[in-house]
Amino acid sequence: MSSKEHQHMQLGIIGLGRMGGNIARRLMLNGHTTVVYDRNEAFVKGLSEEGATGVADLPALVAGLQKPRAVWVMLPAGAPTEETIEALSQLLEDGDVIIDGGNTFYKDDIRRAKTLTDKGLHYVDVGTSGGVWGLERGYCMMIGGDAETVQRLDPIFDSLAPGLGNIPRTKDRTATDDRAERGYIHAGPAGSGHFVKMIHNGIEYGMMQAFAEGFDILKTKSSENLPQDQRFDLNVADIAEVWRRGSVVSSWLLDLTADALATDPKLDGYSGSVADSGEGRWTIEAAMEQSVPVPVLSNSLFARFRSRQQSTYGDKLLSAMRFGFGGHVETSKK
Amino acid sequence: MSSKEHQHMQLGIIGLGRMGGNIARRLMLNGHTTVVYDRNEAFVKGLSEEGATGVADLPALVAGLQKPRAVWVMLPAGAPTEETIEALSQLLEDGDVIIDGGNTFYKDDIRRAKTLTDKGLHYVDVGTSGGVWGLERGYCMMIGGDAETVQRLDPIFDSLAPGLGNIPRTKDRTATDDRAERGYIHAGPAGSGHFVKMIHNGIEYGMMQAFAEGFDILKTKSSENLPQDQRFDLNVADIAEVWRRGSVVSSWLLDLTADALATDPKLDGYSGSVADSGEGRWTIEAAMEQSVPVPVLSNSLFARFRSRQQSTYGDKLLSAMRFGFGGHVETSKK
Amino acid sequence: MSSKEHQHMQLGIIGLGRMGGNIARRLMLNGHTTVVYDRNEAFVKGLSEEGATGVADLPALVAGLQKPRAVWVMLPAGAPTEETIEALSQLLEDGDVIIDGGNTFYKDDIRRAKTLTDKGLHYVDVGTSGGVWGLERGYCMMIGGDAETVQRLDPIFDSLAPGLGNIPRTKDRTATDDRAERGYIHAGPAGSGHFVKMIHNGIEYGMMQAFAEGFDILKTKSSENLPQDQRFDLNVADIAEVWRRGSVVSSWLLDLTADALATDPKLDGYSGSVADSGEGRWTIEAAMEQSVPVPVLSNSLFARFRSRQQSTYGDKLLSAMRFGFGGHVETSKK
Amino acid sequence: MSSKEHQHMQLGIIGLGRMGGNIARRLMLNGHTTVVYDRNEAFVKGLSEEGATGVADLPALVAGLQKPRAVWVMLPAGAPTEETIEALSQLLEDGDVIIDGGNTFYKDDIRRAKTLTDKGLHYVDVGTSGGVWGLERGYCMMIGGDAETVQRLDPIFDSLAPGLGNIPRTKDRTATDDRAERGYIHAGPAGSGHFVKMIHNGIEYGMMQAFAEGFDILKTKSSENLPQDQRFDLNVADIAEVWRRGSVVSSWLLDLTADALATDPKLDGYSGSVADSGEGRWTIEAAMEQSVPVPVLSNSLFARFRSRQQSTYGDKLLSAMRFGFGGHVETSKK
Repeated sequence: MSSKEHQHMQLGIIGLGRMGGNIARRLMLNGHTTVVYDRNEAFVKGLSEEGATGVADLPALVAGLQKPRAVWVMLPAGAPTEETIEALSQLLEDGDVIIDGGNTFYKDDIRRAKTLTDKGLHYVDVGTSGGVWGLERGYCMMIGGDAETVQRLDPIFDSLAPGLGNIPRTKDRTATDDRAERGYIHAGPAGSGHFVKMIHNGIEYGMMQAFAEGFDILKTKSSENLPQDQRFDLNVADIAEVWRRGSVVSSWLLDLTADALATDPKLDGYSGSVADSGEGRWTIEAAMEQSVPVPVLSNSLFARFRSRQQSTYGDKLLSAMRFGFGGHVETSKK
Repeated sequence: MSSKEHQHMQLGIIGLGRMGGNIARRLMLNGHTTVVYDRNEAFVKGLSEEGATGVADLPALVAGLQKPRAVWVMLPAGAPTEETIEALSQLLEDGDVIIDGGNTFYKDDIRRAKTLTDKGLHYVDVGTSGGVWGLERGYCMMIGGDAETVQRLDPIFDSLAPGLGNIPRTKDRTATDDRAERGYIHAGPAGSGHFVKMIHNGIEYGMMQAFAEGFDILKTKSSENLPQDQRFDLNVADIAEVWRRGSVVSSWLLDLTADALATDPKLDGYSGSVADSGEGRWTIEAAMEQSVPVPVLSNSLFARFRSRQQSTYGDKLLSAMRFGFGGHVETSKK
Repeated sequence: MSSKEHQHMQLGIIGLGRMGGNIARRLMLNGHTTVVYDRNEAFVKGLSEEGATGVADLPALVAGLQKPRAVWVMLPAGAPTEETIEALSQLLEDGDVIIDGGNTFYKDDIRRAKTLTDKGLHYVDVGTSGGVWGLERGYCMMIGGDAETVQRLDPIFDSLAPGLGNIPRTKDRTATDDRAERGYIHAGPAGSGHFVKMIHNGIEYGMMQAFAEGFDILKTKSSENLPQDQRFDLNVADIAEVWRRGSVVSSWLLDLTADALATDPKLDGYSGSVADSGEGRWTIEAAMEQSVPVPVLSNSLFARFRSRQQSTYGDKLLSAMRFGFGGHVETSKK
Repeated sequence: MSSKEHQHMQLGIIGLGRMGGNIARRLMLNGHTTVVYDRNEAFVKGLSEEGATGVADLPALVAGLQKPRAVWVMLPAGAPTEETIEALSQLLEDGDVIIDGGNTFYKDDIRRAKTLTDKGLHYVDVGTSGGVWGLERGYCMMIGGDAETVQRLDPIFDSLAPGLGNIPRTKDRTATDDRAERGYIHAGPAGSGHFVKMIHNGIEYGMMQAFAEGFDILKTKSSENLPQDQRFDLNVADIAEVWRRGSVVSSWLLDLTADALATDPKLDGYSGSVADSGEGRWTIEAAMEQSVPVPVLSNSLFARFRSRQQSTYGDKLLSAMRFGFGGHVETSKK
């Protein structure tokens, strides 16, 4: 967070899971006060013991905040978030602000902002990166909403953000807005925060798949299918480690790779079945709406789809065609 | 084959498997004589009973042919073909011709043609499409070699080719060389026949994968993961059948798909593990040498690679990174 | 069309462009009567002279049809179709049917069918393939809607379809429903017709791109960037022609390729800028909803996106990064 | 470089371009002595003034080194490197070592190592990452060769490497070989160094393309083709900057992106034509040899191929087919 002095604020927080709970903690560490709610009473109780004001329902949360109120919703995207914001919008009053810090589809933000603005409420969407590391490292935030409201909430964002830290400053950077350097940006109107975060995740998928493919080639270079004098039995843990220093691919994802390979170079602890979340798909939809060719981002998503299947109907159809034209019979699978 | 009269020739054939045997048969049906050899004596015996002159080794085959000799080698690409051609080159004489009808890498053709020319021999490479259907439908042939030799062998090619058949002629075609319309071409110098056939196979992979992906979407449209009112339980056999008539995707591969789906719409008889041969890979190498972007041809190949694996090291690395940044634990696989 | 006797029907047709006009013509050739409307009076006048009953507006069209009425809407997808169907729904009566023969997104069909059913109307969606060739060859149709209504319209579909023609029947096909063999299917409830047509177009994109990439490699094999002895100056027109006979890639798209290359092998008449329509994008969306990996279908779409741009912002960013880490300066473009 | 004491060595260096020159400088800064040669006399003169012993030809270089000699060849891959190593092998004596620090194809290393070993010479291949930043930051090195020779050269590698620096150590790393942490590894036998470096570059291409595609979507989100309320005019410089802090995509390539966008957010200084070098292609070849699906690495390469062309023959063929089946006429290009 920034070292400069900032105003202490009061924030309502709904959803005290891994992300929401740590956001509350980081804010309290920075002198802010929080009024917190989760349908899981244990979560509320736990944070209350750390200094938050725990409440039992949304009306109590609203009642516990001073006007103009600010409520941060940190729930799974889709129905949980949608229903909570709908309920909040019935309880809040003119000038209050609802912040959606989850992984909402940005078109839902655009729609909601219109509806809430008609009711005199403000809406701010915050794409939040940081995962389990956020409490310690701070959260990288991409924020959408009207400028005045985003400015009003600045003490909150400033406290949650990583701050300048020891990351070297970008040479020749002349921008007068220093928020990006401190780890958060006001991207534009409602929806733009989640849009930028969505693209961030799309890029993340592509970078991860690039590493996955590269290490797959390194690992299988010892295969007995290769001529004896062309096999290498490579130490993938050392390779990940050495690339962390001075190579072009040095990155946080490589740091994580080095972490994982240091203790389990064969990755036997993983099944190879990889989940994906909405952002990857929405990124491809956005690319199609804008006619942007995205072979890498899309293939990264498809690799995950494929990873979750034993075999596909399509593959079987390939075998069926091959049998049809060439009499090839394919039944085994290694 | 062409209905026009042609000269009857004598041809040596080495390799009497599915392809070589049927080539001998189709030639004999058209009045040519053949001297045949295979290291499997049963194959030689079988064809002898159908009218061929069976021999027991290469010297006997060479001895059984009149000069200038023509020998068609129809063996697996790589060592079997290479060694046989090497041996033949020691036995043949000035003006004789070696024909490689297999799936040889075209750069091997270029190399061999140089070596054999130095010895006074001719070399012709024939990319042969037709598979198990060739005896009946004829073989589509792409031929590389010097023009004079290719012309000398014309009666052979004319007999093996499908001929005009009942396929509508291409409108506005003005080429004076009618061989393409009868099912074979002289593509250029040695190597060009196999090069054109190689690209044919690369395209084939891409078309097959297009059908595979499309039918996969059709099949999974009944998935319970979709909202009830958006599921369709589609009859894939009927869909393949209807597309055969008047649609843009009508093709022989679609005919084969309709065949397969008519009796096994779930394709339960196939494991989903799909082989690939050298041509697909060489096509990508050629594209890289020529800086041609080939996302479809390459991804078709990669889908086959992937189909043969339960899981990849790369997929496991994705899970490991996901665990690293988000604490996601992925272990199950459906 | 089928040779069997069929009932003669009356059909209203809205939209008399290339597709709608020819549909009217083919129906009249088969003894049906049509009441036709287009906002372009010249189109109405033209078809009237060919035997149709031309009308000046929608109310006149509805008034000119006997109950239960059937109206085929053949307009561009999106607003034109949506607004026309909305207007028709105000004019039609219980038991009448609206047919959307355009390229509507199938989710719009599902929505409309619900609305119209509530009003007592029937809704049928027809994915129609055949393009400029449909009048002569017939239209391949994929139909969605309730079974009773689709059956009632059968004489129309039967007349528009190609019929068995001289296409060999699929061996081992035992289905009792022979409509697929005559060129049309009842795919399922409303929306399923357009869904199947959408996937057809997705596959079409993939097949086209497979040919595009393959011929690109063939064409550039004469490049001066290759070693002299590895260049081939290939006759692409002959190659397309020869593949039409007995090869695995024989298809209607190959026939069209042979047509085009016969007169313009360098394809100088084309800019290389390729359009795409909604179906290709919706196919990818469907694949993402169903978690189906579709690298070929998606990359085919992206190749078209890319074809319409001189350069991309992404490419410039690659150069910027390259400059950053290696001092590479890239400015020229061939 | 390491802070620990190391032996001072003498090294011959051939090729004093950007890389070779800086390698000489970094070694001299660390107390080593160098004997340097380049066919460009000015380069030799320049380095001599900085303390190196400049020589006029290879014999002089060999004569100027004490046995057992070590010569680092830092020339363009292919003929320049091949010919120089051939010449050196005639001049060097039993026990001497040749180091190829360039971008040689690893199969050439395997071949060369065999030949040189037969002559009593040692061969070490060093994949060197670091570009224009290496003098200051150190070089990340991946080394192939026999263990004894690599160990003998350790003072050289130790001095060239970045060292531990201020990069956090990988948690749970228990490897006893600390070279990876100091920025260099002994990957295995000859060829393995360049192999690992080759895969590094393949991954680099994929990561770069992921950023390229993501920023392309961000940039074009302001397009007038989108509905007014769905356009965002995003500040790409700020987005790159904010992602540097606490996001999952933080990386050196992102740092470079932020550098570039800080001063030229429209990237008008770049044409969009992007070069590629051998490593990217060789990576795909290796993947094919090992049957590893690499959609992301390959598509990254193809995007560069495509970036260098105005239009492709393949795209024109797509238009030709579209004209054939639908009468679509496509001529303009934006």
